[in-house]
Amino acid sequence: MNEEVIILIDLTIVLIFAKILEEVVTRLKQPPLLGDLLAGIIVGPTVLGIIHVPANVAVVGWLGIVVLIFLAGMETSIEDLRVYGIEAMVVGIGGVVATFILAMLVASLFGYGWITSLFIAVVLAPTSVSVTVATLMELGILRTKVGEIIVGAAVADDVYAMILYAIVSSIATYGVLQLGSVLHIVLGLAIILGGFYLLYRYGDEFVSKFIVKSHVGEAVLTHVLIIGIGFATISAIFGLGPIVGAYFAGIALASVARSRNLRHHYTFLVSFISPFFFVYAGLLLDPWSIVSAIDLEKALFVALSLVIAGIIGKVLGCGLAARFYGLDLRSSLIVGIGMMPRAGVDLVIAATGLTMGLLPMELYLGVLLLIYITSLSTPVLLKIIASK
Amino acid sequence: MNEEVIILIDLTIVLIFAKILEEVVTRLKQPPLLGDLLAGIIVGPTVLGIIHVPANVAVVGWLGIVVLIFLAGMETSIEDLRVYGIEAMVVGIGGVVATFILAMLVASLFGYGWITSLFIAVVLAPTSVSVTVATLMELGILRTKVGEIIVGAAVADDVYAMILYAIVSSIATYGVLQLGSVLHIVLGLAIILGGFYLLYRYGDEFVSKFIVKSHVGEAVLTHVLIIGIGFATISAIFGLGPIVGAYFAGIALASVARSRNLRHHYTFLVSFISPFFFVYAGLLLDPWSIVSAIDLEKALFVALSLVIAGIIGKVLGCGLAARFYGLDLRSSLIVGIGMMPRAGVDLVIAATGLTMGLLPMELYLGVLLLIYITSLSTPVLLKIIASK
Repeated sequence: MNEEVIILIDLTIVLIFAKILEEVVTRLKQPPLLGDLLAGIIVGPTVLGIIHVPANVAVVGWLGIVVLIFLAGMETSIEDLRVYGIEAMVVGIGGVVATFILAMLVASLFGYGWITSLFIAVVLAPTSVSVTVATLMELGILRTKVGEIIVGAAVADDVYAMILYAIVSSIATYGVLQLGSVLHIVLGLAIILGGFYLLYRYGDEFVSKFIVKSHVGEAVLTHVLIIGIGFATISAIFGLGPIVGAYFAGIALASVARSRNLRHHYTFLVSFISPFFFVYAGLLLDPWSIVSAIDLEKALFVALSLVIAGIIGKVLGCGLAARFYGLDLRSSLIVGIGMMPRAGVDLVIAATGLTMGLLPMELYLGVLLLIYITSLSTPVLLKIIASK
Repeated sequence: MNEEVIILIDLTIVLIFAKILEEVVTRLKQPPLLGDLLAGIIVGPTVLGIIHVPANVAVVGWLGIVVLIFLAGMETSIEDLRVYGIEAMVVGIGGVVATFILAMLVASLFGYGWITSLFIAVVLAPTSVSVTVATLMELGILRTKVGEIIVGAAVADDVYAMILYAIVSSIATYGVLQLGSVLHIVLGLAIILGGFYLLYRYGDEFVSKFIVKSHVGEAVLTHVLIIGIGFATISAIFGLGPIVGAYFAGIALASVARSRNLRHHYTFLVSFISPFFFVYAGLLLDPWSIVSAIDLEKALFVALSLVIAGIIGKVLGCGLAARFYGLDLRSSLIVGIGMMPRAGVDLVIAATGLTMGLLPMELYLGVLLLIYITSLSTPVLLKIIASK
């Protein structure tokens, strides 16, 4: 078969499986990306193995995730940190620090090297609260102190995760002990922060003075998007990982996007191309490779230990921080459990780690298990505690 | 560098060069795709050679061209054939037949095999009238008999080109002398026609009864698009080439798209991803490979002969057909010259031929030259003739 036939077959398989499984999981009130990820696991080596060239999916996938994170940046609302800003930021830090330490401990105990341990610790750090928000809304407690703290903490959490990711990704790329690599990290961060400032300060002016005068069709929509993708690429080149640049570019351009109503137009693009990334993340799972490499029992033990570390880290870290701010035990527990779910940023970091050879397959398996277990159990647990 | 860094660098280079050169060519009143193609020639092996993995561009490119042709199908207006339908259809056939015969003759004379000759003949058959339409509009003669005939002939032309492409592509894939391959072609055409009928007849019902009930975000937009991509893939699997399926699916779903206002939403997607295809088409050009394969002088002679065949075929074929319907010499010449420009469908067919190894590089070079020469000269020639 000619090149284009294989490309189109692969992409079509991805789209059809992704949308069917998105349909299933959204009916179960789970985030669509869990369906995409499952689609990837099914069409990938784990079950069917029907994708000819996984790299074909990777190309659209990386483009898709960058666009998605750029949009997520645009939709980050600092407003969410308004009422209980300090509380939310501390709850966020509590969860990130506790999870980070626990994950490093678990990985070190199992004898993984320190870069791998550092990497898996960063993978487990971010939270994704879409399931929590939906459940709190259903329970009618989203607009209470507990709800506000969770939503705010999730915003803060993303920022911490991006910074951690940038640092650990740089260390993994350049090593940490040489002066040159430290300079690289500092330079990378300086470029992202400098770019962030320029975009935030002059983005609107640039769009109003130059882009609107473009003769190219849909210029504002495409050119702003290209700025986001360009930032992601610069961030990736400097070893900070692509989503760091995409996220901060999104935040910097949020007001431009709002005033020009761009986000609405990006939504369709995202729902069309971002599934490719999560399918790709599912394709990367190959449990059969574990069997040939290490003991399957040991692998499962490692993966489950990681799941437990990931859960305890958030419940304890966020819960204790909430308790510190005077929330009662029940509310603190709601905060802790509400901060459990993973999905999104963690997957991106894990996928990078896997393709860089920093994350062994059994740890990747642990991340996927953590995503499904927390996403499925959080609504159930929240309802039990809230109804008490 | 890790996989995702290379992917993002390649895609970003493509986007930036494409949009800058789109800006330049649109200011020269040329179609944007000539800018994308030029961007591909510049970043590709011809000039800079800065794309790491051209296959990365190919993946988004093939997705982009399928979406673009699907949209083109949706925008095909049978209305354009209303007033001078018969005349337009005959003018279209005149141009296609004359060009086809001339191109086959030229290719055979230069000693190319009959499949290559057949293929290049199909490449030269389709017309792309966007430059012509813009010029006629500028001259204020778009809504005259001459203008209506050209626009109608271009619509008919696309359909002929798709059918020719389907047949020749099947022959190239399966060979023609065996019974099995004939059955394949018939089966492929039957599936496309059957699918066309089903989509045309039940598309609206399917969308209203099923897709609108989907729980997935942006379901109508994404699912209709997936139908188009799926059709393209089926068409490609049966050796008819991807754009045949995409085009007919677009025509079949035109009324659904109109009633649900889908086309407007697809425009942004197309302006974002379709440049990748034309850049990819430019990347495929590698004149240095000609130098090592055959005499450069001979290659240029072949390429220019092809350009002349492509021009004379349309001017003579369409012009004579117009004259046959009683248009005066000047109007017939306007029709003939107005039907000269190539861009789009021809490039897709040529790119497929090149990657299948059916089209030698010097013929591909001829196609690119034909595209630029006709697109640049048509407005000038039309203005000279119209002002006489």
